[in-house]
Amino acid sequence: MYIRENLRWRVIWKYAWPSLLFFTIYDIVVCYLYGPLGFRSLDIPWQPVGTLGVAVAFYVGFKNNGSYDRFWEGRKLWGGIVNYSRTWAIEALEFVTSVVDAPDVQASPASAQELTIRHRRLVYRQIAWINAVRLNLRRQPELWDEAVAPFLEPAESEQMRGLSNPPTHILRAQAAEMRVLRESRGLLNDFQHVTMMRVIEELFNLQGGCERIKNTPFPRQYAYFSAVFVWLFALLLPLGLIGEFEKMGPSHFWLTVPFSVLVSWVYYTIEWVGHHSEDPFENEMNDVPMTAICRNIEIDLRQLLGETNMPSKIEPVNDILY
Amino acid sequence: MYIRENLRWRVIWKYAWPSLLFFTIYDIVVCYLYGPLGFRSLDIPWQPVGTLGVAVAFYVGFKNNGSYDRFWEGRKLWGGIVNYSRTWAIEALEFVTSVVDAPDVQASPASAQELTIRHRRLVYRQIAWINAVRLNLRRQPELWDEAVAPFLEPAESEQMRGLSNPPTHILRAQAAEMRVLRESRGLLNDFQHVTMMRVIEELFNLQGGCERIKNTPFPRQYAYFSAVFVWLFALLLPLGLIGEFEKMGPSHFWLTVPFSVLVSWVYYTIEWVGHHSEDPFENEMNDVPMTAICRNIEIDLRQLLGETNMPSKIEPVNDILY
Amino acid sequence: MYIRENLRWRVIWKYAWPSLLFFTIYDIVVCYLYGPLGFRSLDIPWQPVGTLGVAVAFYVGFKNNGSYDRFWEGRKLWGGIVNYSRTWAIEALEFVTSVVDAPDVQASPASAQELTIRHRRLVYRQIAWINAVRLNLRRQPELWDEAVAPFLEPAESEQMRGLSNPPTHILRAQAAEMRVLRESRGLLNDFQHVTMMRVIEELFNLQGGCERIKNTPFPRQYAYFSAVFVWLFALLLPLGLIGEFEKMGPSHFWLTVPFSVLVSWVYYTIEWVGHHSEDPFENEMNDVPMTAICRNIEIDLRQLLGETNMPSKIEPVNDILY
Amino acid sequence: MYIRENLRWRVIWKYAWPSLLFFTIYDIVVCYLYGPLGFRSLDIPWQPVGTLGVAVAFYVGFKNNGSYDRFWEGRKLWGGIVNYSRTWAIEALEFVTSVVDAPDVQASPASAQELTIRHRRLVYRQIAWINAVRLNLRRQPELWDEAVAPFLEPAESEQMRGLSNPPTHILRAQAAEMRVLRESRGLLNDFQHVTMMRVIEELFNLQGGCERIKNTPFPRQYAYFSAVFVWLFALLLPLGLIGEFEKMGPSHFWLTVPFSVLVSWVYYTIEWVGHHSEDPFENEMNDVPMTAICRNIEIDLRQLLGETNMPSKIEPVNDILY
Amino acid sequence: MYIRENLRWRVIWKYAWPSLLFFTIYDIVVCYLYGPLGFRSLDIPWQPVGTLGVAVAFYVGFKNNGSYDRFWEGRKLWGGIVNYSRTWAIEALEFVTSVVDAPDVQASPASAQELTIRHRRLVYRQIAWINAVRLNLRRQPELWDEAVAPFLEPAESEQMRGLSNPPTHILRAQAAEMRVLRESRGLLNDFQHVTMMRVIEELFNLQGGCERIKNTPFPRQYAYFSAVFVWLFALLLPLGLIGEFEKMGPSHFWLTVPFSVLVSWVYYTIEWVGHHSEDPFENEMNDVPMTAICRNIEIDLRQLLGETNMPSKIEPVNDILY
Repeated sequence: MYIRENLRWRVIWKYAWPSLLFFTIYDIVVCYLYGPLGFRSLDIPWQPVGTLGVAVAFYVGFKNNGSYDRFWEGRKLWGGIVNYSRTWAIEALEFVTSVVDAPDVQASPASAQELTIRHRRLVYRQIAWINAVRLNLRRQPELWDEAVAPFLEPAESEQMRGLSNPPTHILRAQAAEMRVLRESRGLLNDFQHVTMMRVIEELFNLQGGCERIKNTPFPRQYAYFSAVFVWLFALLLPLGLIGEFEKMGPSHFWLTVPFSVLVSWVYYTIEWVGHHSEDPFENEMNDVPMTAICRNIEIDLRQLLGETNMPSKIEPVNDILY
Repeated sequence: MYIRENLRWRVIWKYAWPSLLFFTIYDIVVCYLYGPLGFRSLDIPWQPVGTLGVAVAFYVGFKNNGSYDRFWEGRKLWGGIVNYSRTWAIEALEFVTSVVDAPDVQASPASAQELTIRHRRLVYRQIAWINAVRLNLRRQPELWDEAVAPFLEPAESEQMRGLSNPPTHILRAQAAEMRVLRESRGLLNDFQHVTMMRVIEELFNLQGGCERIKNTPFPRQYAYFSAVFVWLFALLLPLGLIGEFEKMGPSHFWLTVPFSVLVSWVYYTIEWVGHHSEDPFENEMNDVPMTAICRNIEIDLRQLLGETNMPSKIEPVNDILY
Repeated sequence: MYIRENLRWRVIWKYAWPSLLFFTIYDIVVCYLYGPLGFRSLDIPWQPVGTLGVAVAFYVGFKNNGSYDRFWEGRKLWGGIVNYSRTWAIEALEFVTSVVDAPDVQASPASAQELTIRHRRLVYRQIAWINAVRLNLRRQPELWDEAVAPFLEPAESEQMRGLSNPPTHILRAQAAEMRVLRESRGLLNDFQHVTMMRVIEELFNLQGGCERIKNTPFPRQYAYFSAVFVWLFALLLPLGLIGEFEKMGPSHFWLTVPFSVLVSWVYYTIEWVGHHSEDPFENEMNDVPMTAICRNIEIDLRQLLGETNMPSKIEPVNDILY
Repeated sequence: MYIRENLRWRVIWKYAWPSLLFFTIYDIVVCYLYGPLGFRSLDIPWQPVGTLGVAVAFYVGFKNNGSYDRFWEGRKLWGGIVNYSRTWAIEALEFVTSVVDAPDVQASPASAQELTIRHRRLVYRQIAWINAVRLNLRRQPELWDEAVAPFLEPAESEQMRGLSNPPTHILRAQAAEMRVLRESRGLLNDFQHVTMMRVIEELFNLQGGCERIKNTPFPRQYAYFSAVFVWLFALLLPLGLIGEFEKMGPSHFWLTVPFSVLVSWVYYTIEWVGHHSEDPFENEMNDVPMTAICRNIEIDLRQLLGETNMPSKIEPVNDILY
Repeated sequence: MYIRENLRWRVIWKYAWPSLLFFTIYDIVVCYLYGPLGFRSLDIPWQPVGTLGVAVAFYVGFKNNGSYDRFWEGRKLWGGIVNYSRTWAIEALEFVTSVVDAPDVQASPASAQELTIRHRRLVYRQIAWINAVRLNLRRQPELWDEAVAPFLEPAESEQMRGLSNPPTHILRAQAAEMRVLRESRGLLNDFQHVTMMRVIEELFNLQGGCERIKNTPFPRQYAYFSAVFVWLFALLLPLGLIGEFEKMGPSHFWLTVPFSVLVSWVYYTIEWVGHHSEDPFENEMNDVPMTAICRNIEIDLRQLLGETNMPSKIEPVNDILY
């Protein structure tokens, strides 16, 4: 996620120069053919170009809407992951207490030490889950050792990493621990048990929502033609303008170049912006900053556990927060 | 679902050539009538054509929005099916345990073997359900033996296949099994029982949502006129342009053909894209890839059961994932 | 709901001819006044007409969006009625069992015969409810005997029909039966009781949602001016075009008639389509097909009861499914 | 809420004449200055006016969308109030029964007479609440005696009326009565208790939703400039048109008046319609008909109590339902 | 939040004059170069400017939509905070009663005095939470002593203020108190316990929703180019108009200045309005009035506690409610 209020010009330039260069060369070629080489039939009336411009603006606007909605839905899902991570942690801490209140279970009350271990395991596994979801979305299994493993017990970590969808199995491990707490250890009563299972249901919904956006690109038929139409418009534009500039005075047709480049660039940029916002989980400039969110959750949850030795927040790199 | 970033030109060409051919012939006929045959009154002012172009662009944009929303709602529903299949599986595995905790039921604890059978039946029946929903949406009852039957017990499978809506009856079988587990076998307590019944409620909502989209096409009055208006616009377009090209120079009116074809094709394509995205469950290029999703769920759920001999993921055919 | 992929031309013609006739006469009158009778000041510049055309296209597009949303919300509500009817039926069948599990109730287990009667009554009353909602929305109380009464006990049916809102009282009868099953007969435990009451809450939401759309038309101020503006545009259109056609050649102004009629008709049709989709519960061509949906629910629910003598599905009449 | 299919012309005229008069005078002044007084520089090119027209149409369309959404959200909230009033009534009637089923409460079963009183109090207090919400939204505390007091016990009514937000305290009284029924009188069990408390939660959401719309106008920066821009456009319009009409013939510039008035009026009306639909709880022509809805709920709920002496439905006054 | 129906002209002027001044100077420079200095090639055809105007209007409209949605979502979240604060207070007051009804807890009934203290603590901590959320969103930790501390016990307040996210820990303190009430003191039964924990879950969702909007600006790529394109349009505008005004008569080109300024200002203002509505939690003119909402909640909740010595409502300052 780009975080400066205004984009730096060098960022804009970095993405803009190839298209600007192309438009400039193309428009010069058109003018050269029209003027010095006298291909006067390159001059076409403005009407089809203008109508095309309006229709294309509509279509690209439609695509931009869709792209933005995808980004915002992705961000909302990660917002939900923040919220339910907190809810999970607080329920783990305040439901799993020394009192044995599961019906029909005979067991001794939990010691403070046992509780510390159990709380830590339940909360750390949640931190493991958020990181595992992130790695899954960004296709970065190589970061497992650094981002997921520290929050799981070693055996669990090894078992999970080989499965096709590790986050699903991490949640299943949470559910299995709930079962033990309810049925064998007796520290969760039935109300608390189903309440926490409902949180797991929500976490599945959030995880699945992210996977849906990741696995289903913006429909290619919509997305692709948007670029095709913008290029068609940019190619027709100097043909429609050159005659109009010609009317302004001799050699004025050369002014077609800067103004045609300018208008083409605006259309191109509108399309480009939408195109690069389609997919919010690609580890690029316009992404949901999942690494930073995961770190924030980690800090929040570890503070709830009473830990004080916190990792630092993620800082933006070149104005981009990942 | 088409999965390449960019559509292949031969795919575009495959769908585009009939309309391009028609537009080309029509526009040549118009020019021939106007020029060589001298029907000068074919030349009409641009104003009504331009205004029509804007109004039609609006209308088609409205339809495209609606089509895309239908696709995305369909995809969301299948995302929900993924999520609740996982939730169902985890609840089946972690709620149905050896402990007899249903109130007022006298029964012996379940053996590991009994649990394995029960877990497998509950989870496989869910896999049967997702496939049955898919076949129902795609009207492919002939695939029952291959896609649904392997996940049901033979008698159950035979009984279901003849009913008007098999998925409904599969969920009813799940509910009946819940009842047995709660009331006779005693392996589910009341909390767990109603929690799993709530998942069935969600599955009914998801199934019904898909059936709603399938059975209710985009309202024909909206959809049909969108195509009619685009054709009207394409037919008027050369009449409006021919006079403008004529002004550019002698015989320039022939240039009406390429440019009119081009603009017509853009409008036609915008309409076409929307039209072919209306219905997301038709087993076509722009569909929700239900076969692939079903396979992914199957792999996930069978891994949760501890199985290791997995079917492979569905691969795209000609860039299309079904 | 119109079900053919493409509207039949005679359907279009049936609705289009009066407006086409009017536009034709009006445009001929304008041309006759302008040409033969020489009222040259009927010729006005195109600019105000074109600007009006764009503004009106916007406004009508806004209204079409609203109309479509109303239709789709109505359809979603009926989709919800399908889903919760299934949920209700399955809960009635699988919760109300022979076991007396309500706390503090002394009663004998239910016989198979008693269960059959109770299941049938609970499920049939749900079928009565969906039909009663439908008759209420379509203002067809005269169909009560045919559509609702067969699914209620005679006394109940007589009592309900006179009340101001029968569906509300049918759901109340369901709630009363739940109470008996929980408190006197003991066949429902508390978990099951509140779960089924939650379904009743959902059914009230669905019923009330339909009533809201029925009782609150699209705000008349928005809807009415949309038609007024389209007519204003259609009346100005030939005045703006006639001078442009005049420039094309002598007597070319008569060409104003066909092209003005065409553009007027497109605008009129866009408005017309939106106008006729505003209200989805009017028993007209563009309605939610409630009769067909009710019949489908009836078949589904009766199959769940084990009945085999099913009524047939509703077939479209003149391509329209009611 | 205006209820006629088509607005009466005198209603339109009532709101339209001041603006029409202003536009007419202004446009005459412009023409008089331009023609007889010869201020030829009043004639400006059409291009900036046309571009402004399109931009303003966009902006006003955006505002109309927002206004309509506010209205429809308000209507949905009141639909929710209808639905949950019914749910509340049915739960009060079918949960509060003669059986003492609260755990650990020793009390005698309720007599029919006691139940009648208790049911009536719970349901009437809900009627009091809907009316109190309505008076709060319309700022009509003076109607308390007529609309709220009859449904509360006198002491309760006196106590409530002085508080800053009476509906909140009415719901609190419901919650307090639930507590008594659960803890002292024993007529509600825990399941029923929390189920009804959840309805109170919903009612708070609905009440708060209405208050949010009431207290947060459409952001003034958006709303105000919409009117400013329409007026700017209307003032520029004759300047842009007058030269175009002048070209049509001598003295044709006077035709600027009717056509400029017409187009100005269309823009003004689009803005006006949006402006008057912004706030759905103001007791004006375009409001949510809360009085009528309250009366319908009252009739429904009193019929559920078995009462037969019903007040009549609210009738529209001058085609407006309040 | 600006609260006057119409913006004051001096408010508009305050924000408008720098851009008006710039546009005026720039347009005068253009005219001076074109006229007196004779740079005739500054005159460009209108077509690219007009097309740019339409495309930019689209793009800015898209951004305005997004900005408004962000504001309205922020307002809805605070509406939810109002609603759930009321629900929390009523549940605290009516669930935590003198009766010891937690299972397996032996304790004496609560005295009226104990209840008063407990009720006050639970409700005041909720007031502390809403204020802590507000300070967090506005980055005003320096107001802690005034806005949060008075509603917490001193030790709790000191402990919270140093943590990275105080509101999270305040809710945790609520959950911890629930646990004590359920497990040690016995004043909450299990039903009530999980019901109130569900409210805490909702409060986490509301808090997290606000943090999401705060921490995720409108994507900069969309937002920034919107301003860039408006400036490009404003810079091209006089070049496109000057030739058109020149045609109106000698020296008429100077009229380019006022009209170009006017149209530029309209575009600039549309962009400006959207830009200043993007972020609803910045303590500026267009914000969600969180201070006023917090005060209203405080009054409501303290009245529910039976307190009568209320703070006054927040009044607007210079027409702005904070």
